[in-house]
Amino acid sequence: MSITDVVAYAAPKPKAPLERTTVPRRPVGEHDVLIEIKYAGICHSDIHQARDEWFEGTFPMVPGHEIAGVITEVGSGVTKFAVGDRAGVGCFVDSCRECAHCLAGEEQYCLKGGVSTYNGTGKDGQPTYGGYSTHIVVDENYTLRIPEGLSLDVAAPLLCAGITLYSPLKHWNAGPGKRVAIVGMGGLGHMGVKIAHALGAETTVLSQTLNKKEDGLRLGADHFHATSDPATFTELAGTFDLIVNTVSANLDVDAYLGLLGLDGTMVNVGAPEAPGTFGYFSLLRLRRSLAGSSIGGIRQTQEMLDFCAEHGFGAEIEVIAADGINEAYERVMASDVRYRFVIDISTLHENA
Amino acid sequence: MSITDVVAYAAPKPKAPLERTTVPRRPVGEHDVLIEIKYAGICHSDIHQARDEWFEGTFPMVPGHEIAGVITEVGSGVTKFAVGDRAGVGCFVDSCRECAHCLAGEEQYCLKGGVSTYNGTGKDGQPTYGGYSTHIVVDENYTLRIPEGLSLDVAAPLLCAGITLYSPLKHWNAGPGKRVAIVGMGGLGHMGVKIAHALGAETTVLSQTLNKKEDGLRLGADHFHATSDPATFTELAGTFDLIVNTVSANLDVDAYLGLLGLDGTMVNVGAPEAPGTFGYFSLLRLRRSLAGSSIGGIRQTQEMLDFCAEHGFGAEIEVIAADGINEAYERVMASDVRYRFVIDISTLHENA
Repeated sequence: MSITDVVAYAAPKPKAPLERTTVPRRPVGEHDVLIEIKYAGICHSDIHQARDEWFEGTFPMVPGHEIAGVITEVGSGVTKFAVGDRAGVGCFVDSCRECAHCLAGEEQYCLKGGVSTYNGTGKDGQPTYGGYSTHIVVDENYTLRIPEGLSLDVAAPLLCAGITLYSPLKHWNAGPGKRVAIVGMGGLGHMGVKIAHALGAETTVLSQTLNKKEDGLRLGADHFHATSDPATFTELAGTFDLIVNTVSANLDVDAYLGLLGLDGTMVNVGAPEAPGTFGYFSLLRLRRSLAGSSIGGIRQTQEMLDFCAEHGFGAEIEVIAADGINEAYERVMASDVRYRFVIDISTLHENA
Repeated sequence: MSITDVVAYAAPKPKAPLERTTVPRRPVGEHDVLIEIKYAGICHSDIHQARDEWFEGTFPMVPGHEIAGVITEVGSGVTKFAVGDRAGVGCFVDSCRECAHCLAGEEQYCLKGGVSTYNGTGKDGQPTYGGYSTHIVVDENYTLRIPEGLSLDVAAPLLCAGITLYSPLKHWNAGPGKRVAIVGMGGLGHMGVKIAHALGAETTVLSQTLNKKEDGLRLGADHFHATSDPATFTELAGTFDLIVNTVSANLDVDAYLGLLGLDGTMVNVGAPEAPGTFGYFSLLRLRRSLAGSSIGGIRQTQEMLDFCAEHGFGAEIEVIAADGINEAYERVMASDVRYRFVIDISTLHENA
């Protein structure tokens, strides 16, 4: 396959609505696979980037880093995948492969920055385009295997939302005997509930209201509390080993640190734009930590997919057609989705 | 011994100069020891409390929680100490002994709050008075043994400054192959240099200027950098596994977080009054942590004293007479001490 234009949905410029267009894909190289995309999840960070809220982006921008599809072509040197395999792509499609972090399988922290699935620059110097598109060409080493038993639609969001929660939950040892709180019950948070529960931790949801309580308990939470109720912060003071904060608005950090017990950690996986504030005594008391975590490496992402398949769950999704992306963005901003929008990429073909 | 008044130096009211007075000590109970105090260190937190800067204190206040002396009387049930033993007392003199933290030997995080050596309330309901005094009565379970080979004067500051650094350095695994930075080269920081070096870590001092470089290298630092030089923050970006921040003024937390490598932790042991601020991306990048640590438990404090004796060091001190306390406070505030003032308590007797 030579350089080919493929159908995609792109933001032509910052803050503009996304529209149907075409973007080029590179030829399938020796170690590449060509994936026919079936589903692509909509991540809050897609919106941040399409609106140029984090850093100056490259436009036109095709968002999408929660990609699930089927391999339709492989390069001559590909050994891990064959045509017909079900494959996924997450937040990055390459990295330096040489730094200590890449060598340790922590490519998400590549010291040279790696190559983002979209809004980045490939090793060929060309802009990268994401999953709101019919096809993508990716090096096999940055391609995930979607296990049998996981439908592609519910698998797609695992590639970002799933690993974003799985990685810190594993890193900070969520499991039997551990008391874990998930702050925020959205696209990230609902995966946190499923994974923390599946890991065996006593799992609590801390959500603004009790509106999603029934869902939370159904997905595996043992407890569900409203953070709009001040009593939550007195009742639960000092009771968690781990809090994973998925909310990308600024919270009262000290109030949440107060919920941690001895040696407890509050891990942020969302990224509010404004700085956070903390009182030093909140950390000194009980030797608490405030941390951050960003997605996960390729090896751990595969481990997460296998874990979810083994436990029989993917994301809770609402499938939309490609022409519903802009409306979906508005609904994500309004927290009006249970719990992840997934684009049915076949609708991109049909409209062609 | 019945209730006795002992000579002490006390702040009669908040922010007032300290002056010679007497305070009562309880009778030596079944499990108590009576310690004739020989030396008492001056900790920055003594000044904060004598000036009522942290919380409303109890006055008159006798500060001092870095106490070294000799046991002159023991209660009938005392099994761990005998008359003539060299003994130390740190930041607390009792705790609930029942909560999970006390049972785990982490009495400094007692869930009921414990009993501070001064500016606290004993289990008898009476105010506690600290080490700027000729004698103190303490339960043997909250009394430390000063090992042979450690002079009492250089041992005194270990009871707070030493354990404040030893505990986080041990908790976050400072040792061979680990790159540790100590921020601030004062009473706490200079102990951090000695201990981190003795633990085998590659030890760097980050000090405002290079004024104390010679001292830093002599005490065991491998490297010494000035934080007033912006180049320090670019040159050392991403190079530390652990940063222990001993500075009790507010720092640019993000600048220091940027010095941490993958999974690095910045531990605060000082307590600025104003809240700190941090950027979420500083934590998300490289899965960094911002933590706090407060002194250590009795078992670990004894371990620290034994460790220091084994490695042949105490604190670097400047010994003063009791009537020099107020001047010493001013010099501590001006960072004009290398590196800890220690009161020679015999001068309290002589002036009697």
